[in-house]
Amino acid sequence: MTAVLLRDAPARIHYAPRLRRPEAAEGRPRVVIVGAGFGGLSAARALARAPVDVTLIDKRNYHLFQPLLYQVATAGLSPADIASPIRGILAGQANARVLMGKVTGIDREGRQVLIGERRVPYDYLVIATGARHAYFGKDEWEPFAPGLKKIEDATDIRRRILLAFEQAETEPDPVERQRLLSFVIVGGGPTGVELAGAIAELSKVALARDFRSIDPRSARVILVQSGERLLPVFPPRLSEAARKSLERLGVEVRLGHPVSECGESAVRVGPDVIDTRTVIWAAGVAASPAAKWLQAEKDRADRVKVDANLNLPGDPRIFVIGDTALAVDSRGNPLPGLAPVAKQQGAYVAARIAARVTQDLDIGPFVYHHLGNLATVGRKAAVADFGFLRLQGSIAWLLWGVVHVLFLIGFRNRVAVLLDWIWAYLTFQRGSRLITGVKG
Amino acid sequence: MTAVLLRDAPARIHYAPRLRRPEAAEGRPRVVIVGAGFGGLSAARALARAPVDVTLIDKRNYHLFQPLLYQVATAGLSPADIASPIRGILAGQANARVLMGKVTGIDREGRQVLIGERRVPYDYLVIATGARHAYFGKDEWEPFAPGLKKIEDATDIRRRILLAFEQAETEPDPVERQRLLSFVIVGGGPTGVELAGAIAELSKVALARDFRSIDPRSARVILVQSGERLLPVFPPRLSEAARKSLERLGVEVRLGHPVSECGESAVRVGPDVIDTRTVIWAAGVAASPAAKWLQAEKDRADRVKVDANLNLPGDPRIFVIGDTALAVDSRGNPLPGLAPVAKQQGAYVAARIAARVTQDLDIGPFVYHHLGNLATVGRKAAVADFGFLRLQGSIAWLLWGVVHVLFLIGFRNRVAVLLDWIWAYLTFQRGSRLITGVKG
Repeated sequence: MTAVLLRDAPARIHYAPRLRRPEAAEGRPRVVIVGAGFGGLSAARALARAPVDVTLIDKRNYHLFQPLLYQVATAGLSPADIASPIRGILAGQANARVLMGKVTGIDREGRQVLIGERRVPYDYLVIATGARHAYFGKDEWEPFAPGLKKIEDATDIRRRILLAFEQAETEPDPVERQRLLSFVIVGGGPTGVELAGAIAELSKVALARDFRSIDPRSARVILVQSGERLLPVFPPRLSEAARKSLERLGVEVRLGHPVSECGESAVRVGPDVIDTRTVIWAAGVAASPAAKWLQAEKDRADRVKVDANLNLPGDPRIFVIGDTALAVDSRGNPLPGLAPVAKQQGAYVAARIAARVTQDLDIGPFVYHHLGNLATVGRKAAVADFGFLRLQGSIAWLLWGVVHVLFLIGFRNRVAVLLDWIWAYLTFQRGSRLITGVKG
Repeated sequence: MTAVLLRDAPARIHYAPRLRRPEAAEGRPRVVIVGAGFGGLSAARALARAPVDVTLIDKRNYHLFQPLLYQVATAGLSPADIASPIRGILAGQANARVLMGKVTGIDREGRQVLIGERRVPYDYLVIATGARHAYFGKDEWEPFAPGLKKIEDATDIRRRILLAFEQAETEPDPVERQRLLSFVIVGGGPTGVELAGAIAELSKVALARDFRSIDPRSARVILVQSGERLLPVFPPRLSEAARKSLERLGVEVRLGHPVSECGESAVRVGPDVIDTRTVIWAAGVAASPAAKWLQAEKDRADRVKVDANLNLPGDPRIFVIGDTALAVDSRGNPLPGLAPVAKQQGAYVAARIAARVTQDLDIGPFVYHHLGNLATVGRKAAVADFGFLRLQGSIAWLLWGVVHVLFLIGFRNRVAVLLDWIWAYLTFQRGSRLITGVKG
C-alpha cells in the first residue's frame, strides 16, 4: 500500500523548529489548570503577574461562551461567534502555555496530570472541567433527547430542528406531519426557557414564509418542567412573567410532571403522551469525571466536595471550581452552576496561589458575590433579578443583550454577535439556518 | 423498550397543518431544477415571472458560495457567512417551491425525477448538480488528501490544519514535528493558489504568537502543480505574478510534476518525497452522477455532453448546465467550470423555457460572455485578467474583495464577510480557528 510505503520513506528535508523561549525555569511553581471554561480561564488570566508557570489544558482549542449556545442551536448565531481560540486569548501572557489534550487521570502521589501516555507535573492543580448533561439514570434516552453543552450538540440540535421542518414539508401523512412539527424541551431552567422561546420565534416568524405545503406557524413548542414553576432560582413573580411571555409566543408550558418515558416518536409527561420527533434535554447536569480521577468524595451529580478554600479536603495543592465543584455558601447552601460563580472561584484560586507562593499568606475562605440572574424569553422579553431590583419585558431584554455582549471574550465576537442580533431584530430572520453534517 | 412502546402510542393531539396555497394548477408547465448552486439558483430566479411552476431540489438546505470556501477551510470565515438557506432566497417567489432531498435517478420515459420512493414529475428538467473532486482513478488517496467542495470538507480541512499545529506543539521528535508542520496543496488552479496563500498567512501571521514550543512561522507550505505554470487559464504574465506573490509569502511552488504517490505521512512529487501529515486536494473535479441518471454520453470527467442550446442531444425537455455539463464555445473549446458560466447558463435556460412556454419561440443557442478571471494570493495580492485589462497586486486584491462581496447572496452575508475581512485586515487575526468535530 502506498501509505505503508511512504510511512517509512526517509525524511528528506527537515529542520527542528526554533524554540522561542527556554523551558520553565527550575524552581518556579507549576500551576496546571484543567479546563478552559469560565473558571479555568479566569484562573489562568488572574495568574498573569504571579511568579508561576501556568499550563492550561483543554480537550478543545477554544473557550466556549456557553450562555449563548442555545442561539447556535436555533440558527441565530454561528459557532465562531461564541467561541474564542484559547491560544489567542492567552497569546500575550508570557507565563502561560496551552495544551490541547484529553485528561485521562490524575496521579496525586506523583503530582502529575495524565494525558494518555503524557504526564504533566504540577505544584498546584486547578480542576475546572465543567459539567455535561445527565439523564438521571436514563442514559438510554440520550439518542432521542440530545442535550446542549458543546458546539457539536448545538449544530446537531439545529440540524434536527431544521430537518423536522424539511421532512414535514414532504410528509403526506397529517399525523406524522404534526409529530414532526412538535418540539418538546425538557427542563424549565434558563436553558430550557431560552430554547423554547427561540424555537417558537424561529417557527412563528423566521421560517413563516419559507414553506409551501406546511405552515411553520402551526408548529407546537412544549416546555416540560417537573417543578411547579419555571426558573426556580428566580423569585416567583419573575417565573410567572417568563411563563406568560412564553405563552404569548405560543409555547405550551407544562408544569408539575417530569418526563417519565422518552422514545423516538413520543414522550410521556405525567398522564399525557406527546407525539414528537424532536426532544431537547435541558434538565439535568452531571460533573465531568474529575471525582473519579481524584478518587474524591462526590454528590449525586458527581460534583467534588470542596472545603471553604475550594480545596480538595486535606489537599491544599488541589482546587476544584465551577460546575465540577460542590461548594457551599456561609449558610451551607450549594452554590449554583453559573458562569459568575466559576469566574469568581477562578480569580479566588489564582489569588490564593499567588499569595501562598509570594508571601506564604492565607487569604481566607472564598465568598461568592451574587450579582443577579438574567434569562431571556424571546424578542423584547426577558426577566432579571438583582435582589434589590427585579425587571421584566423589554428593559430586561436590552439589559440581557448588553450583559451578554460585554461578557463575550474578544472584540470580534462582540461585534459579530451584535451584528447578527441587529440583523435578526430588523429583519425577523435567522442567518445561520444551515443543516450541516448530514451524510451523503 | 421505551422507544418501541411509544412508537405505537396513540396520537393524542394532532391537527393537520393549514395548506397555504393550492397545489400547482393543472396545465401549467412544471420546471424541475436539480441543484441549487450558481446555475440552478440562477435558473430558478430567472423564471420568477414565467407562467410555470418551479421545483428546486437540493440535498442541502443552503446555497453555498463556493469561491470563498477556502476561507472557511483556513479559519477566516464561518460556514454561515458563505451559505444562504435556499428557502430564504426563494421565499418571495410565489411560483417556486423547494424540496430538500437526494435525487437517486431520473425516469426519462415517465418524465419524473426520483428521490428515493418519491417521484417528482416534470415538463422541463434542468440538471445543475455541480461537480465533486476527483483523484484521477486514485480514489484510495482520498482519506489522506481531502478535497474542498462542501462545508463539511472545509471544516474538516480546518480541523486538520489546526490540529497539525496542536500536535506539533506537544511532539518531542523533531522529524515528526516538521512533518506535522508541512502542508502540501495539490493543484495550481485558483483554489490551490488561494489555499496555499491563506495557509501561509495563517501560519506566518495569525498563529505566530500562539504557541510556546514551536514557531508556526517555521511551517512549510508546498504548492504542487503538474503543469508548467500556476493558474493555466490566466495569461502567463499573471501566472508568474501569482508565483512570485506566493513565494514572497514563503510558499514553495513546485511546477512540472504531478503527485505520483500519496500516503498518510508523505507524498511523492516527481523525484522527491515530501514528508507531510496534511495534504489538500485541489487538483481534479468530476461531475456528479447526472450522466448515469440520464444514461447520456459523457467525457472523461463525467460531464454530460450538451448541444448548443444546452439540451441533452435529442431531448429538448432536459437541460444540463454548470459544472455538470460539457458545453463548448463557438470555436469548439469546452467552457470552464466557473461560477459566471453556470449563472449565464441558468439564466439562458430560464429564458429559453419561458420563450418556449409563452410564445413557442426558439431564442437561439447559448453564448458565453467572458467577464474575466480573478484569483487572490494573500493579503494585498491578487491577479485579475479582463482581456483588455490585466491587474496584479493590491488593486487586483481590492477588486477581488469587492467582486466577491457583491456576488455573495444576501445582505447579512455581505456585511458579515466584510466585517470578518476588515477585522482580519486590521488585526492580522483569523476569527474562526475552531477545531470542531473531534470525537470525545
